[in-house]
Amino acid sequence: MQKYNALYAQSGGVTAVINASACGVIQTARMHSHEIGTVYAAKNGIIGALTEDLIDTSYETDADIAALRHTPAGAFGSCRHKLGSLEKNRAQYERLIDVFAAHHIRYFFYNGGGDSQDTAFKISQIGHLLNYPIQSIGIPKTIDNDLPFTNNSPGFGSVAKYVAVSIREASLDVASMAKTSTKIFILEVMGRHTGWIAAAGGLAKNKESDGPHIILFPEIKLDHEKFLQKVKYAVNTFGFCSIVVSEGLKNADNTFVAESGLTDAFGHKQLGGVAPVIAQLIKDRLGLKYHWAVADYLQRSARHIASLTDVEQSYALGKAAVELALAGKNAIMPIIVRESDHPYRWRIGEAPLEKVANVEVALPRDYITEDGFGITDQCRAYLLPLITGEDYPPYVNGLPNYVTLKNKPVTKKIEKTFEV
Amino acid sequence: MQKYNALYAQSGGVTAVINASACGVIQTARMHSHEIGTVYAAKNGIIGALTEDLIDTSYETDADIAALRHTPAGAFGSCRHKLGSLEKNRAQYERLIDVFAAHHIRYFFYNGGGDSQDTAFKISQIGHLLNYPIQSIGIPKTIDNDLPFTNNSPGFGSVAKYVAVSIREASLDVASMAKTSTKIFILEVMGRHTGWIAAAGGLAKNKESDGPHIILFPEIKLDHEKFLQKVKYAVNTFGFCSIVVSEGLKNADNTFVAESGLTDAFGHKQLGGVAPVIAQLIKDRLGLKYHWAVADYLQRSARHIASLTDVEQSYALGKAAVELALAGKNAIMPIIVRESDHPYRWRIGEAPLEKVANVEVALPRDYITEDGFGITDQCRAYLLPLITGEDYPPYVNGLPNYVTLKNKPVTKKIEKTFEV
Repeated sequence: MQKYNALYAQSGGVTAVINASACGVIQTARMHSHEIGTVYAAKNGIIGALTEDLIDTSYETDADIAALRHTPAGAFGSCRHKLGSLEKNRAQYERLIDVFAAHHIRYFFYNGGGDSQDTAFKISQIGHLLNYPIQSIGIPKTIDNDLPFTNNSPGFGSVAKYVAVSIREASLDVASMAKTSTKIFILEVMGRHTGWIAAAGGLAKNKESDGPHIILFPEIKLDHEKFLQKVKYAVNTFGFCSIVVSEGLKNADNTFVAESGLTDAFGHKQLGGVAPVIAQLIKDRLGLKYHWAVADYLQRSARHIASLTDVEQSYALGKAAVELALAGKNAIMPIIVRESDHPYRWRIGEAPLEKVANVEVALPRDYITEDGFGITDQCRAYLLPLITGEDYPPYVNGLPNYVTLKNKPVTKKIEKTFEV
Repeated sequence: MQKYNALYAQSGGVTAVINASACGVIQTARMHSHEIGTVYAAKNGIIGALTEDLIDTSYETDADIAALRHTPAGAFGSCRHKLGSLEKNRAQYERLIDVFAAHHIRYFFYNGGGDSQDTAFKISQIGHLLNYPIQSIGIPKTIDNDLPFTNNSPGFGSVAKYVAVSIREASLDVASMAKTSTKIFILEVMGRHTGWIAAAGGLAKNKESDGPHIILFPEIKLDHEKFLQKVKYAVNTFGFCSIVVSEGLKNADNTFVAESGLTDAFGHKQLGGVAPVIAQLIKDRLGLKYHWAVADYLQRSARHIASLTDVEQSYALGKAAVELALAGKNAIMPIIVRESDHPYRWRIGEAPLEKVANVEVALPRDYITEDGFGITDQCRAYLLPLITGEDYPPYVNGLPNYVTLKNKPVTKKIEKTFEV
């Protein structure tokens, strides 16, 4: 049996655990070195594949590859770049075939979200459309938890854990200070289109007095009066009010609250930051002292507080991708299938890439309480297993010891360059 | 020997480890139950002492008191309230004596920063000025690390660790994305008057390419051109630029950058947020895509990533306070004395409260690099031991299991109420 090489690439926003999938791919390929030759990585996702900027992962030690499992962000660089249709962008696909052929690549693993699975699907079609034998396997990843088929998306569980831990801690802080100081705390979290991440904040709450008292979802338009009533109730009843707000929160007129008209001294629209807008609303209407935080990239890179479940699943999906390739599969994505909530049991399944691409799974309405400000027991039952377990990275001198790979570039074999 | 009771209270902004000091106080007092009667806690700091809102800690189980060591924020509530001078506020001090006398309190432990030590000092003088026998011992606490005498302030080490871990993680994230997306990341941290917390971000950097590439200190006025040059250099050289900025950063004219003229649609000044101002400056002048985070309370409540050194010292200072009281001392504060950097060795010393109060220790100029954008080796040698070691709280269902005390109120004995 002739051995061919593999190409692995990372795509879209990175996460605390996407490298755990990379670890799963590379370790599994190394265990099958009689079937798979070199594992190359594309520098900066599909862009590196197009420009022939490849990395030879065989120069990395076993220890460094193992350390990927506990290292956040994208070890090979990621990108936001979608391949156009084959009809209109034939040159791009022919270029990919040139690069694949030059480096004897017949396995392609693309690790990303919905857009990236679209790219993975298009590449999977090169075989019968352009007559180049490639197996393209998608590996799911997105903190937004909005991929179809898979019960949950790798990367989400760790963000969810970060958000739940952070709002629990900050709520205790505000509760202690509320007598003479801050009474309102607002944590802004990611999730422009769906409220999965905001919902995770609700896990911090065990009883009514616990924060967060209010979650503002992108799915529920902001009703100023109803919201301010709820704030007043929390402050009067518990002495303080702790709020999680999604960056994707919208006004009744469907505009983003984050764009509600903050301008700087020069008249520039201030970009981003729904938390300060909500804070100002409370200040103006209720006159209460507030603090706000915007977690931004901290939430998705927080490997120090990653969910063990998330790490294990991310690794398993990378491993499964290689095993599926070795089993001769193409145009599929391994997924997480939930078998039960209590005890939590999951296994790896598979989904056709064709149907994965560009579909966003919404937070079900019955995961949000009727008043629109909290999560239901159903939501809790779904979310809880995803944040369960800790998987601490090793520390040196008080800091997590994350690996930086050698990332040795592969000598280019194609004379012609390619502009992306 | 007649037994008297003790009163413990928390003051000022709370931290991830102030409850570890409370744990040290209460556990040590319980071990000396033949000398100290009940340990009361004042609800919401000195305010509870004035209004006779006391908590009887003897209703708390040993296990719950032990759990204070790993629980962030102020378990008994804190306050921002300074006692005025004895001359002008005699009634306030007489009220305190009434409360102390009614509950047989002769030991007072006040856990706080500079302002709070001023309060602790004033109370220590009640004995000879108003003839009530009290021993008042201060217990240091402040994330700002600006207390005199003590080599470092409990609470700071954990914030420092949080900031260093967070900027390391977020910098890896931006580095992965920089090719096609975000090139600038800005993390805003606390420390309105001194740059100790911002400096801690520098610990994340081991080599020139590592973030943070720039630290903006409150001690160094913002020079737009020099700063933008440095941003350009980082982006050109490393592909991205990661920045830590102190909320206390000032313009050349000594105004806060956070107040540089952001207004909302109604013309209100937007409060807080130096990070978005810096982001906008970079966007306007260099046209680079940015992300920013404001850690706010997350940084000081992040018990999940507390420094072991910080936890141990906070506990030891609480314990020492009780031991000093039992040794008959008054008007002092136990402190951390550093004996060596390598290996890090420290012991407990003591400082006179009279000289602690209202003094702020600045970040030495030679802890900041000559160009004003980084930390020196000297700074690193000072900071490193303070973030060393991890001390994870126990987890249940994926979340830290923080204790909520019973906080059983003590029946009031004084008929007259007191307005604060």
